[in-house]
Amino acid sequence: MKQVIVVNEALGLPPGKMAAQVAHAAVGGLLNAPRDKQAGWLQAGMPKVVLRCGSQDELFALAEQAQAAGLPVMLIRDAGRTVVEAGTPTCVGIGPDEISRIDAVTGSLKLMR
Amino acid sequence: MKQVIVVNEALGLPPGKMAAQVAHAAVGGLLNAPRDKQAGWLQAGMPKVVLRCGSQDELFALAEQAQAAGLPVMLIRDAGRTVVEAGTPTCVGIGPDEISRIDAVTGSLKLMR
Repeated sequence: MKQVIVVNEALGLPPGKMAAQVAHAAVGGLLNAPRDKQAGWLQAGMPKVVLRCGSQDELFALAEQAQAAGLPVMLIRDAGRTVVEAGTPTCVGIGPDEISRIDAVTGSLKLMR
Repeated sequence: MKQVIVVNEALGLPPGKMAAQVAHAAVGGLLNAPRDKQAGWLQAGMPKVVLRCGSQDELFALAEQAQAAGLPVMLIRDAGRTVVEAGTPTCVGIGPDEISRIDAVTGSLKLMR
């Protein structure tokens, strides 16, 4: 079991801002998941991986693929008071779910640096 | 209601690593909180603020103050496979709890950039 959070790197979010957005996705993804996936992930130590994609189109495409695959999905839009325009999608939480099921959608993405 | 996550800035964590640690603290803090605080925070839209402190000693002192004040506290130690030594404390989640109760502990800290 794991959870991945994919960030749109093209936004160039400052690190503190990005961390808050990733945390929104992690918490929201957990709350969106069915009870058995929540429990399995907690027992596994709640592993999380932060990945990156290169555009908003790519972010939307990943969210759609994950949804179609039946994975828990949590797309985060920024409130937009400071860094980016209001409503800008910043990242998407995928999972918690089985590692192989998540890798089928995000397996080609690189780690966020 | 809000939750803050305080990061030890002195570690110089790479942004992606920091985001994962902050997400651990956010999820762990939520799970550590009593049911009524969980519910109040969810209803408020789960506001999160990422702050910074300058040393491990300061991080520990904040965690202790928050614990003494009866706030939900989640100290995160890195598994340490890559960037920092195993077991290094990276950040602490404080809350969810009432804004004034959290500000009494973290009110003087600056936003993580």
